[in-house]
Amino acid sequence: MSDTSDHDHKYSHIHERVDESIDARDDWARRRRKGIPTDENLLVVACMDERIPVEDALGLELGDAQIYRNAGGKVTDDVIRSAALTTNFFETDEIVVVNHTDCGMMSASDDDVAAGLKVQAEAAGVDLDEVDLDPALPALDIGDASVEEWVRMTDDIDETCAAQVEFLENHELIPDDVTVSGYVYEVESGELRRPGERVAEEISERRV
Amino acid sequence: MSDTSDHDHKYSHIHERVDESIDARDDWARRRRKGIPTDENLLVVACMDERIPVEDALGLELGDAQIYRNAGGKVTDDVIRSAALTTNFFETDEIVVVNHTDCGMMSASDDDVAAGLKVQAEAAGVDLDEVDLDPALPALDIGDASVEEWVRMTDDIDETCAAQVEFLENHELIPDDVTVSGYVYEVESGELRRPGERVAEEISERRV
Amino acid sequence: MSDTSDHDHKYSHIHERVDESIDARDDWARRRRKGIPTDENLLVVACMDERIPVEDALGLELGDAQIYRNAGGKVTDDVIRSAALTTNFFETDEIVVVNHTDCGMMSASDDDVAAGLKVQAEAAGVDLDEVDLDPALPALDIGDASVEEWVRMTDDIDETCAAQVEFLENHELIPDDVTVSGYVYEVESGELRRPGERVAEEISERRV
Amino acid sequence: MSDTSDHDHKYSHIHERVDESIDARDDWARRRRKGIPTDENLLVVACMDERIPVEDALGLELGDAQIYRNAGGKVTDDVIRSAALTTNFFETDEIVVVNHTDCGMMSASDDDVAAGLKVQAEAAGVDLDEVDLDPALPALDIGDASVEEWVRMTDDIDETCAAQVEFLENHELIPDDVTVSGYVYEVESGELRRPGERVAEEISERRV
Amino acid sequence: MSDTSDHDHKYSHIHERVDESIDARDDWARRRRKGIPTDENLLVVACMDERIPVEDALGLELGDAQIYRNAGGKVTDDVIRSAALTTNFFETDEIVVVNHTDCGMMSASDDDVAAGLKVQAEAAGVDLDEVDLDPALPALDIGDASVEEWVRMTDDIDETCAAQVEFLENHELIPDDVTVSGYVYEVESGELRRPGERVAEEISERRV
Amino acid sequence: MSDTSDHDHKYSHIHERVDESIDARDDWARRRRKGIPTDENLLVVACMDERIPVEDALGLELGDAQIYRNAGGKVTDDVIRSAALTTNFFETDEIVVVNHTDCGMMSASDDDVAAGLKVQAEAAGVDLDEVDLDPALPALDIGDASVEEWVRMTDDIDETCAAQVEFLENHELIPDDVTVSGYVYEVESGELRRPGERVAEEISERRV
Amino acid sequence: MSDTSDHDHKYSHIHERVDESIDARDDWARRRRKGIPTDENLLVVACMDERIPVEDALGLELGDAQIYRNAGGKVTDDVIRSAALTTNFFETDEIVVVNHTDCGMMSASDDDVAAGLKVQAEAAGVDLDEVDLDPALPALDIGDASVEEWVRMTDDIDETCAAQVEFLENHELIPDDVTVSGYVYEVESGELRRPGERVAEEISERRV
Amino acid sequence: MSDTSDHDHKYSHIHERVDESIDARDDWARRRRKGIPTDENLLVVACMDERIPVEDALGLELGDAQIYRNAGGKVTDDVIRSAALTTNFFETDEIVVVNHTDCGMMSASDDDVAAGLKVQAEAAGVDLDEVDLDPALPALDIGDASVEEWVRMTDDIDETCAAQVEFLENHELIPDDVTVSGYVYEVESGELRRPGERVAEEISERRV
Repeated sequence: MSDTSDHDHKYSHIHERVDESIDARDDWARRRRKGIPTDENLLVVACMDERIPVEDALGLELGDAQIYRNAGGKVTDDVIRSAALTTNFFETDEIVVVNHTDCGMMSASDDDVAAGLKVQAEAAGVDLDEVDLDPALPALDIGDASVEEWVRMTDDIDETCAAQVEFLENHELIPDDVTVSGYVYEVESGELRRPGERVAEEISERRV
Repeated sequence: MSDTSDHDHKYSHIHERVDESIDARDDWARRRRKGIPTDENLLVVACMDERIPVEDALGLELGDAQIYRNAGGKVTDDVIRSAALTTNFFETDEIVVVNHTDCGMMSASDDDVAAGLKVQAEAAGVDLDEVDLDPALPALDIGDASVEEWVRMTDDIDETCAAQVEFLENHELIPDDVTVSGYVYEVESGELRRPGERVAEEISERRV
Repeated sequence: MSDTSDHDHKYSHIHERVDESIDARDDWARRRRKGIPTDENLLVVACMDERIPVEDALGLELGDAQIYRNAGGKVTDDVIRSAALTTNFFETDEIVVVNHTDCGMMSASDDDVAAGLKVQAEAAGVDLDEVDLDPALPALDIGDASVEEWVRMTDDIDETCAAQVEFLENHELIPDDVTVSGYVYEVESGELRRPGERVAEEISERRV
Repeated sequence: MSDTSDHDHKYSHIHERVDESIDARDDWARRRRKGIPTDENLLVVACMDERIPVEDALGLELGDAQIYRNAGGKVTDDVIRSAALTTNFFETDEIVVVNHTDCGMMSASDDDVAAGLKVQAEAAGVDLDEVDLDPALPALDIGDASVEEWVRMTDDIDETCAAQVEFLENHELIPDDVTVSGYVYEVESGELRRPGERVAEEISERRV
Repeated sequence: MSDTSDHDHKYSHIHERVDESIDARDDWARRRRKGIPTDENLLVVACMDERIPVEDALGLELGDAQIYRNAGGKVTDDVIRSAALTTNFFETDEIVVVNHTDCGMMSASDDDVAAGLKVQAEAAGVDLDEVDLDPALPALDIGDASVEEWVRMTDDIDETCAAQVEFLENHELIPDDVTVSGYVYEVESGELRRPGERVAEEISERRV
Repeated sequence: MSDTSDHDHKYSHIHERVDESIDARDDWARRRRKGIPTDENLLVVACMDERIPVEDALGLELGDAQIYRNAGGKVTDDVIRSAALTTNFFETDEIVVVNHTDCGMMSASDDDVAAGLKVQAEAAGVDLDEVDLDPALPALDIGDASVEEWVRMTDDIDETCAAQVEFLENHELIPDDVTVSGYVYEVESGELRRPGERVAEEISERRV
Repeated sequence: MSDTSDHDHKYSHIHERVDESIDARDDWARRRRKGIPTDENLLVVACMDERIPVEDALGLELGDAQIYRNAGGKVTDDVIRSAALTTNFFETDEIVVVNHTDCGMMSASDDDVAAGLKVQAEAAGVDLDEVDLDPALPALDIGDASVEEWVRMTDDIDETCAAQVEFLENHELIPDDVTVSGYVYEVESGELRRPGERVAEEISERRV
Repeated sequence: MSDTSDHDHKYSHIHERVDESIDARDDWARRRRKGIPTDENLLVVACMDERIPVEDALGLELGDAQIYRNAGGKVTDDVIRSAALTTNFFETDEIVVVNHTDCGMMSASDDDVAAGLKVQAEAAGVDLDEVDLDPALPALDIGDASVEEWVRMTDDIDETCAAQVEFLENHELIPDDVTVSGYVYEVESGELRRPGERVAEEISERRV
């Protein structure tokens, strides 16, 4: 049995409600063409690791933020390109960097990585030095830098996180009024911490 | 009231169950150090757009896949670096590329983007040509390529998606036995399609 | 344990609440006899296709609207009869037409349909021209019109939808103050669009 | 924490699962073009009354059945057209007719309806006899039949329901092997009955 | 993690909340000794039939009403005893009688019942006339009345219900200010009706 | 999107499922006329107290059992009448008696009850001895028994419960093969006990 | 589709919300070091029995109260130590003692317990009198007291509970302004009572 | 409508099911008197800290285990007493010790605690040395041990946990076949660890 008192009489005709819903969907689908920014004007830069629930950890919902993720959550030229575009053209005014413990970027020595890639390149019939680093931008070149530098392994994840916040804050293609913060996600506890603030570290012993 | 018949007598002592759970958590937290791959041996490459529910669209859960995301879901040197690492060192054997309609990479002309970035660089006191593209790898250089090429705008998202699958399949740092597929996510319907297979296109008119 | 503070003391005796509920049920069951209109004073005209969730698509609940459905959601004399009755006798003041993509009315040529019906009529021992189109109203006749015209196949669903809104707006048996709107339901996306506004059409290519 | 043992290893690669889902959606969206019938090969003919939950009453889900609805759930030429199309071209082999109690078709006398429509026609500046009954098929004509006959009021809903089942069973455009049944939906109890089987009728008095 | 802001600081110490809960339970358990009436000051008299959801039909919760049920929901001396007690000693001021359709009291003839009981009494070695009608009150006697009268079969449930309301309203042991109402529960629709108001009766035929 | 593989193909046509459901409803509504017993062949005799959740306490669902309830859950001539009918004519083969703690039948002295009823009778203008105990069976008489005996107050609920089981087991109108049991419902714990088995009694003190 | 109107604009940047959440977690994890008391400033002293849902019975949530539990819920020197610490150093100002019926401390005689422990001590190769009662505090000694006194069996749980409240109220290491209460948990009903207030005791018999 | 096919015909009469349920409740309420052990034959020794969800952390349900809790989760004479009783008389064959990080026992220096208690004792008018440590066992004495030793502060929680497991394993009043284990609960992650296995410790830096 229908209870007529439940009806929301915001609309005098049903087609008005349908029209409003059609317009909302159009705004969503053509958001980029219409110049509508993300709901939180936010870019997240995080590691591509399978254990990082980026949206949950930051309390984000679909539509809130653009999410850049690569191996290590490292600031590369691709991060600069992506951040420059969104801050200059899509009204993004905040960047949050998320690194994490037990990162793959800390799990091997530089030598082991270089040796492994050398084997693969040779299996493909080329020298590691001759590999085309960017198939769609052949002009891209790392000059005298070594493959190890290009791969960007990490010694200390807290230092790395802090350094990357600084890189982004100072970069010329990112406007000065963009706010940049950084956090380390602890895969062992499922919580974020500020770089260097390891909660677990001191609390199993008598305080002095 | 407790029903003793519900107990799972897999364990003769409770500490065995606790120990098993502690070991499972250790495997999760130290997964990279212990050489445990992602649950689906999968790398996803997708756009960083805020409207793309990457995990939901592909039916993935936390732990299943590494997820690379940048502006446009474009194959850059950072994608090559990330893909080379995971396929050579983390047992990943499948790559899925996800582009999408109404992408920001299709929403402006090359000239508009170049002009906008030039203004920002000059506001920061440098020439656009002199900008350091990678703050952590100063040796990185795009030679004669233009800023427009570096930014990588797109004309047709279906063609782009197909091309990127080919780039990844042929790259020397990615082993031959890695499977690569590509899809376009339609933000207007919330569904994936294979590149070029636009379901909506022909079905509003009489078939002949 | 009962919490006496939860009781709604709107009624001083329980039989008052029971009486009220009996009266509400009587109003529902004898609604037509008592001259109570639909909760939204609405008639929907839609296709009988099995994939169209008419109520969900329009946000309607049981009791809100009368729902006319036939093959194609086409405006026929039966639509006119039904619409004339409800707008003149049941206080309905809005009509919404819902057509849809991939309609059966677009899936065959006029000739194929005519040929198929001819075979069936002959199997039943009559000529297609002699078939009684309305068993309860033998006087009904389509004169010189062909069976193809009676069946009403469609070339373009968006044009058809717009035309039907116009037919209803102009019909002499439908009062002038009735509001008429039309939508196309996209079975591929599960969304309504206004006729001609195909969201998906242009957003996979660079805007100019 | 992810439990790798939960994974369904039906697929060796994720893209196989995605491909399967894309194909299923294509079958749904292009069902008519591909010649896929309704899931239950069923056409329902029901009244357009706002109180009839057609799908719930018959236990149907989206995709199961085509649903024809008009004023009264009367068998008109439009029902014949719709039924002829689906049984001859879409593999439908069952028709269920659903009439209901307290129908609007029983709530007025023939004279009152004729008088009301006459007033409306004249308000629109035409004689009731001159009204175009079908704006898209001007050739349609009811000859000597009266407007009252065209409107088709009902005296007894159980008799009407049974008669309509017979009309459909005997019509030349509907193949002989189509099964036809009819039910009356009781709006006062929310239940279906077979025509004439009024459960409530005798059970308040002593059986003899 | 606990959110201290959620605490309800109605109590300065936890034992105050515990004490309050202990007192509430004591009021519930010793309700009769403490002279606390039912929450709705209500007595329901209904049939013992297994299909009657007495509380649901009347919208009652545990604690609201005393519920008298016997074969037929008939007003007997036991009803008078129970009603006299609750209205005179427990503050009850409303009585609702619930009879129902398809009652066992209408399903046999007086003769069949008398014959059946006679067989049983004889199987137990006594004459039906000699049976002790009330094992705890041997003085109880029905004088010249027949067993058929004692068993109280019914011809018309609506008439019976109305008569019972009158019996209770007029009885000397029930105070004048007690409100008495009666309803018939329709087992076929699961709804209550007022005696004589059969909703289903006329609405399948044209109103005149 | 509909998944055709979910369909239960027990029925080749939908009308078969509808017919089955109509028949089940008819069996329910005409159960008494068709001679269908309660689902558990059970009669419960309980007190009418508002705190007794009879169905929940015994684990019964609608349709399982007939439920007789009066003041005190006392075995009266009305209980005998009701039990005789259901055991002899409705296939009932089990009776469960449920008394309870803090019963109203234990909350006053015989003298107080007699005095109270005398006041009420006199307010109605009659002597207590002249009151018609059964308005529908005027022949009913309690002879030399006093009003106190008719009202049946109780001293010990466990003894009362056990005595009532015995009354029912031995009564001539109840067949010998009917199983009779009795329980006391503890309103303070919400649990049933067998008469005399007070769980709470000894467990606050050292066992000897 | 994201509804931007749902966003809580308490924060102008997302990192502010993340920072707040990190600080809340730090407060929780370092609560003792930071001198944050329990949410309810409460210590509960209860029996270690497996059937006592201490938190549920008192309506407590994680973080609300410290919970001391030992065999019998007896006030021992360990209770005094724990209570002295929390009331003097952690701002606890309320103590609630919870004993219960059917306690293990009431289930054996002093002699049986002494005999059983003697057997075990001898099996371990020592005299019961020589057993080290506290392995971490060898100086602890019970002087002339017997093992039976140390084990503390109970005769009456209500008396014991009341006595323990008094012990705690009067102890010199517990500040005077600490509130102390005591309850007995009834395992047979799942409810708390105040010592001596046995609800169940008298309500099965006629009140006098 | 009741579906008779759902009934579980394990019982031929309902009273059998009721009897079984009454017996189960009796076993629960008189468990100790009947000699029924805990469902998991387990004793847990844990800290009384308000942040430790003992049952959840170990996966226990009501009835599974006895749970001893005191300040620090320290093994005192009260633990020995409680453990000796349950292992010798209640069939317990497993003990699990749970200590935790940020324990109050690590949050102050020995001197601060001694000074604080001295102030409180003097406020109560006694010397700290003269305080009665156990009001119900005045003979209890700690001899030459200091109040600091009695209070048992901790320097390293992992060492403490391991030491306590050893104390219990070796104690003469605890049978040899009792299994003892120990865990540290990390309040910052909500997880258990084995003593000394700090997951978080090494994984933020490059492994060597």
